[in-house]
Amino acid sequence: MIGGGAAGLGSAGGVKASDPTAEVVVYTQFEDVAYSPCGIPYVHGGEIESFDKLILAGKQAYVDAGIDVHYETEVSAIDTAAKTVTVSGEGVIKYDNLIIATGFDYADPGVPGTELSGLYYVKNIRRAAEWDKVISETKRAVVIEASPLGLEMVTALAHRGVETHVVDPNPYALAMMADPDIMAPVQDSWVEMGAHLHFNTTLEAFLGDENGKLRAIRTSGPDGSVELPVELAVVATHKTPNNTLAEAAGIKLGSTGGIIVDERMKTSAPNVWAAGDATEIPHGLTGVPLQGLTGSHAYAQGKVAGANAGGGDRSYRAVYVPWGTPAGKWVIGGASFGETTATALGIPYVLGVGEGISRARYYPGVQKIKIKLLAEPKTLRLIGAQMVGGGEGIKERADFLATAIKFGLTLRDLAAMENVYSPAIGALNEPIATAATNGVANAEKG
Amino acid sequence: MIGGGAAGLGSAGGVKASDPTAEVVVYTQFEDVAYSPCGIPYVHGGEIESFDKLILAGKQAYVDAGIDVHYETEVSAIDTAAKTVTVSGEGVIKYDNLIIATGFDYADPGVPGTELSGLYYVKNIRRAAEWDKVISETKRAVVIEASPLGLEMVTALAHRGVETHVVDPNPYALAMMADPDIMAPVQDSWVEMGAHLHFNTTLEAFLGDENGKLRAIRTSGPDGSVELPVELAVVATHKTPNNTLAEAAGIKLGSTGGIIVDERMKTSAPNVWAAGDATEIPHGLTGVPLQGLTGSHAYAQGKVAGANAGGGDRSYRAVYVPWGTPAGKWVIGGASFGETTATALGIPYVLGVGEGISRARYYPGVQKIKIKLLAEPKTLRLIGAQMVGGGEGIKERADFLATAIKFGLTLRDLAAMENVYSPAIGALNEPIATAATNGVANAEKG
Repeated sequence: MIGGGAAGLGSAGGVKASDPTAEVVVYTQFEDVAYSPCGIPYVHGGEIESFDKLILAGKQAYVDAGIDVHYETEVSAIDTAAKTVTVSGEGVIKYDNLIIATGFDYADPGVPGTELSGLYYVKNIRRAAEWDKVISETKRAVVIEASPLGLEMVTALAHRGVETHVVDPNPYALAMMADPDIMAPVQDSWVEMGAHLHFNTTLEAFLGDENGKLRAIRTSGPDGSVELPVELAVVATHKTPNNTLAEAAGIKLGSTGGIIVDERMKTSAPNVWAAGDATEIPHGLTGVPLQGLTGSHAYAQGKVAGANAGGGDRSYRAVYVPWGTPAGKWVIGGASFGETTATALGIPYVLGVGEGISRARYYPGVQKIKIKLLAEPKTLRLIGAQMVGGGEGIKERADFLATAIKFGLTLRDLAAMENVYSPAIGALNEPIATAATNGVANAEKG
Repeated sequence: MIGGGAAGLGSAGGVKASDPTAEVVVYTQFEDVAYSPCGIPYVHGGEIESFDKLILAGKQAYVDAGIDVHYETEVSAIDTAAKTVTVSGEGVIKYDNLIIATGFDYADPGVPGTELSGLYYVKNIRRAAEWDKVISETKRAVVIEASPLGLEMVTALAHRGVETHVVDPNPYALAMMADPDIMAPVQDSWVEMGAHLHFNTTLEAFLGDENGKLRAIRTSGPDGSVELPVELAVVATHKTPNNTLAEAAGIKLGSTGGIIVDERMKTSAPNVWAAGDATEIPHGLTGVPLQGLTGSHAYAQGKVAGANAGGGDRSYRAVYVPWGTPAGKWVIGGASFGETTATALGIPYVLGVGEGISRARYYPGVQKIKIKLLAEPKTLRLIGAQMVGGGEGIKERADFLATAIKFGLTLRDLAAMENVYSPAIGALNEPIATAATNGVANAEKG
């Protein structure tokens, strides 16, 4: 495997599951494997007390499992004809099967000043621990783009008492995937937390002082060209697949820059597999290739790629993308796409909206939840969903709705769904059913 | 309508939805409607601060909706041929359509001493407020049967600092529906909370003092015949349908004593409909009639019965019974049936068990969850599920699994399900998928 993240380690485990005698070597450029990078923003935010908590397994666990991890090791070339990789300090190494799990990089902001110190790309746990000390001494920070990571970092910095700005060229946060009405309460809560939102605003430059340290950013937005003094910039631009190696080796990439894989996670090259953020996977309904899914996807893909590389026969199918994340004082989530994406793709839909509650109205801790369901106009088959709420049940409903989309359930099916009613854990009316009932009524009105 | 509970009021609303001009009269023997009786145990337990919180809508709300509620009014007879009901203080009243929503009674304990004071049947909100004062002065109480209500009341009384005993003839709590391994942690937590559990123990008598007040119960169990001094007995025997009226009117009852209804909630008598605990509904897989479902079921059935009585055409289908409730320090739940019921019905099954967590392992508030999935041995179609956990996501997973059963999803489908991974709200591995993967492996082993 090239890569020691969820995809790389998932595939190492997958190979061993198919063939316990296989010799498995994982190359990683980092000092560690098997920690949860997804937890980093929450340590910064103070919800998790230390970076140590994010370590999942000691290095010995991999030794014990027969997985040979080469740390701080760069792979500089792949030769798919000779079936070799060129490894720093090791030379040219032969493989029977290669799994590419090289992950992502943040897109280059493409503006002057990226060489300055004070730009933080959230990724590596050791760097994160160093940056955490910087955050402690930071008064003003900016998050570049309200991406999924950007959302988490705005919330984290605001929690830490830093004067936090967010700059994004779109009219609202997470505009590439979420609908504006879902994001409105999130943005309101950021303002309550003291964050400053700069939407419809383009980053023009990072500006440095005489020591090469970030002192401000320059943006152009509704108020013209503005200079915003900040000591720290979290670069949360979108993820791009880290495929320099694969591309140089002639392995076929798709429109997103991700490696094209078949259902068995095989690339265009013989005996070369790929998994995780380096790949692209078709959306289950539209076939549109998606890139930059979650750690859970990467791990599952890795297991399939590894199992097949080890001689097994498993497949990984198109995805319906349940997602969810805390954002400000809310939790948002969904499955497949919302109105914004449907409209952008020209997909017609019927909409059902429901507002509900997570427990009985009178039970302490009850939280609001708003659910939007999108369905095919004629069949009323569910094609997408988005939610915002206090948090309870968002993740589980997103999982349910992704499965409902995959199996062709309709708004009528969901309107008639049974639900648990027990005051401490569920309300009389399930908000999914309420939204579906509204959607059926909207469809019948035409 | 006869009955002012969830089924009666649901059907009143259902009629008005179909025919806004319909004259709708609801007869109830109680002083109130539209409160949540399901919340009563949680007021007793102190989780909810007062009974007032359980009131959903003032009486005026029904007046405004054109629903004429006759409070403290007994219906003493139904004549389905003459299409009349005999109402206390009103005489013989003509109807075009009648909806029977007479609910349940607790099964008679069938032992001497039920006439004593100190026996509490949890049902009416005004009585509950009076009993709450009694609980405040109670040192020792017994809950008769570890039924769903019994579970809630054991927990509530233990919370209130009462020395709480539970007596049940079965070997463990909720033995009619839950599996012993699901209930084991619940029972352990009751013991931690100071409750005393008497299983395999039969109630023989309530014993009174010279003033006709309960002073003890007598039981026979593993230790022979025992006298247990208590001041209060919560009678939480199973629910029986309250069908004296329907039976006298010649309306067909089923094997559970519930009124038999068709898919439109119509009874055997012309223009007579029924909903809620007074009816029986076939289980979606087995066709076995079920009686005593939840308030959510009663309300949904009422809406269908009402809509049809008002001239509409809606149907209510067989049920897959998602359920859930707090119990001790845990939350339990499931869908359809578990191993105990499957075994009792002679239904073969493959079992998959998974243990998982509700958030990332390192995220504060993370809770354990154990999931058991039962599937048809050949097709691996899901036929039942049971869970126990800290609470997060139990209700939503039960809803999902009930729908998965209804739509014929298999363990393979669930093993491949996508899930949200975001540290604060969901773990890398979804426990449903873990349980399903285990089930597939068990099936493949044979």
